[in-house]
Amino acid sequence: MTKLTTKHNTLSASRRQALVAICGEKAVITDPEKLAAFAGDKWFAVGRPVAAVLPKTAEEVAAVFRLAARWGVPVTPRGAGFGYVGGCVPVQGGIVLSTMRMNRIREISVPDFVAVVGPGVITGDLQRAVREKGLFYPPDPASLNDCSIGGNIATNAGGPKCLKYGVTRHYILGLEVVLPDGSIVRCGGRTHKNKTGFDFVGLFTGSEGLLGVVTEATLRLLPHPPARAVLSAGFRDMPAAARAIGKVFAAGFLPAALEVADRFTLDAARAYRPGAGFPPGAAHLLLEVDGQPASVKSEARALSALLKGAAATRVTVATTPRDCEALWGLRRAFSESLKATGLRKLNEDVVVPRGRLVDLTRFAGRLQKSTGFPVACFGHAGDGNIHVNIMVGDYENPAIRTRADRALDELFAQILAWGGAITGEHGVGLAKMRWWEAALTPATRTLHARVKHALDPLGTLNPGKFV
Amino acid sequence: MTKLTTKHNTLSASRRQALVAICGEKAVITDPEKLAAFAGDKWFAVGRPVAAVLPKTAEEVAAVFRLAARWGVPVTPRGAGFGYVGGCVPVQGGIVLSTMRMNRIREISVPDFVAVVGPGVITGDLQRAVREKGLFYPPDPASLNDCSIGGNIATNAGGPKCLKYGVTRHYILGLEVVLPDGSIVRCGGRTHKNKTGFDFVGLFTGSEGLLGVVTEATLRLLPHPPARAVLSAGFRDMPAAARAIGKVFAAGFLPAALEVADRFTLDAARAYRPGAGFPPGAAHLLLEVDGQPASVKSEARALSALLKGAAATRVTVATTPRDCEALWGLRRAFSESLKATGLRKLNEDVVVPRGRLVDLTRFAGRLQKSTGFPVACFGHAGDGNIHVNIMVGDYENPAIRTRADRALDELFAQILAWGGAITGEHGVGLAKMRWWEAALTPATRTLHARVKHALDPLGTLNPGKFV
Repeated sequence: MTKLTTKHNTLSASRRQALVAICGEKAVITDPEKLAAFAGDKWFAVGRPVAAVLPKTAEEVAAVFRLAARWGVPVTPRGAGFGYVGGCVPVQGGIVLSTMRMNRIREISVPDFVAVVGPGVITGDLQRAVREKGLFYPPDPASLNDCSIGGNIATNAGGPKCLKYGVTRHYILGLEVVLPDGSIVRCGGRTHKNKTGFDFVGLFTGSEGLLGVVTEATLRLLPHPPARAVLSAGFRDMPAAARAIGKVFAAGFLPAALEVADRFTLDAARAYRPGAGFPPGAAHLLLEVDGQPASVKSEARALSALLKGAAATRVTVATTPRDCEALWGLRRAFSESLKATGLRKLNEDVVVPRGRLVDLTRFAGRLQKSTGFPVACFGHAGDGNIHVNIMVGDYENPAIRTRADRALDELFAQILAWGGAITGEHGVGLAKMRWWEAALTPATRTLHARVKHALDPLGTLNPGKFV
Repeated sequence: MTKLTTKHNTLSASRRQALVAICGEKAVITDPEKLAAFAGDKWFAVGRPVAAVLPKTAEEVAAVFRLAARWGVPVTPRGAGFGYVGGCVPVQGGIVLSTMRMNRIREISVPDFVAVVGPGVITGDLQRAVREKGLFYPPDPASLNDCSIGGNIATNAGGPKCLKYGVTRHYILGLEVVLPDGSIVRCGGRTHKNKTGFDFVGLFTGSEGLLGVVTEATLRLLPHPPARAVLSAGFRDMPAAARAIGKVFAAGFLPAALEVADRFTLDAARAYRPGAGFPPGAAHLLLEVDGQPASVKSEARALSALLKGAAATRVTVATTPRDCEALWGLRRAFSESLKATGLRKLNEDVVVPRGRLVDLTRFAGRLQKSTGFPVACFGHAGDGNIHVNIMVGDYENPAIRTRADRALDELFAQILAWGGAITGEHGVGLAKMRWWEAALTPATRTLHARVKHALDPLGTLNPGKFV
């Protein structure tokens, strides 16, 4: 584990007592062993907070912020801790503010198609709760059974279904946010459209805990699509898979999901789950369509024919929930099998312009050859949001680490040269800070600083990150 | 016409010459008669600019901004001038900056599913240009053949198809924006997902020319859906229509459009176009579904049966482009027939939580009775974004105007009491400023002021509006 510089590493008894007076004894954690659970996320870096507080209301969050501002102590907000980029690592120590006790689903309204939730609600729990009422909350990050709505908002989380349904932002109608000065602002509301003033819902969504802390969210829900079908198809190589994708779009399909995996990913998954039924070939596509039962049936048939006509090595179609889940199991095996290699998986959720898919996998092949690190590409082909995984043996070995970091530099330089993005859904956090400057012009970085300063003039909130 | 206070009402010859040096002689308009075309939009207020400039590049916009900042002269940005709320009215005189000469479609990329355009491109022209390549730009404001992409971005324009496809924001991947200090920032890019830093694309979209001027936009395109169907249905009354809407959603349909009209609107349209084929009843629904041909066919059939089962007085289904357009003609007649009454149509694009549709039309009925002004409601039922039109005879008559304004106050108070929004797609502009304070908490207004100050510390840009 890499320990980062800690500036604020002690908390006096009187300050502890002041926090307890706000949140209650149980909600203020200062025991070093228990604090370890608040030191980082799924990325490798950890910080050393002096306290973790778990407020239950916006007013408690505001009171903590006002104290922290007076003390000059940083506050780092934290959701469920399932981020991939170290966004919630308390780089400068200080106070970690967890939103996980604000975990009530306050309302699910069928007539209004909204849910009102605390930020600590687990995304999968929300999906199931609205499903029982015939409603649908589409965002589906891979960690949906562990991650929280608050964390999803902080990173503007995506997932496979973004292609048709869009990212988390598209499902946030209203937010209650506490600013670093302790003011509580409400943005948006419970209407499905709203043009009242600036789009602060958008500004806070994806702001990675640098501008404020969400204490309540009003979510947009859809009617639940009554039917779905999933198709799995193998292809000889990536250019063949990319041609098939082109044909899917050209026929006017916008699938709910369109996932791709390359040769390395497939080989690892085949080795990990030999009997799973991966189709032959060096590239794999997984498509989902959803909607009305008759439509899904005819579209699955049409897509199957289209994929076969595009030289698929084998096409499997699932229409029952159980069979659909089995095919998604192939997709999940990609990530699991890479983890099972025992190598460290440097998972970079880069995005390329949609037409660059073949170029990206070719580049990954060259990178693998020149660096010696295996490179596995899979992810959201429809969005161009491909997870490029550079597989590294001993990342703690400084020499290997330097080589691995150089490989990442090459990857990101190429992504940016194509007009791509350094992150599609994980966020910048600590993991992508190395390429932050290259990704933006000086004027755009200055704009970030101006808005950060306007909302957080003391720099109290989540310091040490990209602004 | 109402003339607003003009502070900056003269331009010296040397200053004129400085503007000409930037934009060229033809692109600087100071002739009072020609300037009238830059004084306002479709709302009734007009301002008195001292000059209109029509720059062709971001650099020219930046140079104009730098001069204006030095002179302390306001700059009011302007698109095609087809807004409904006076957002581009130069309230304090000064310079009007029109984006209409930046009107090139710079690129349409089929593999990347993007278009790169200047802000002056007419929305309908863009739609047709991408359609020719099998692509689809969904936002469809009523004025699409007159309004510009830049204006659509400034107001985050909507339209009937927002229900399924979302508003303008969902189709903006990247922006080039000139800030009031003359810096040129690029936000987002040409990828379909991007989590690099704060969502400035979202912040500028819908900011009504208060934060910067868009000089280039990269738009997200979809595959063009190959088929569509439109259904028109009459209902005995609004509660019956609302029950039918509930059944449509409960069956898992998310139509591309779901439009409603009330009794007054229908009666006016029947009087205006007697032979048009409006179904019997005091409420009207218009639905569109699109997608694959077989799906559209079966869904149109299912929806027709569903509407009949929900006690529709008559259902008409159109599946050919010509018949679909004919049914949309009914919808367009609503607006035209209200205009044809000769009354002034105070068109308020309020939004209610989706379940409040019947409450809203009942309230409109009571308002009509208590004020004596006819009130016509029609619009985007699926979004809860209903255009409430208070029809006023002689709005210039101060006594009548006072009464009409009081009726509007009653309407907006009720909308806000329901948790609704004062504008869904037109923007605040001047028209909604009267209810701006009531719509937001003091903390949220302060947040607007802080962000405005961070980006426009001198207050040069579009002064006299909601911040």
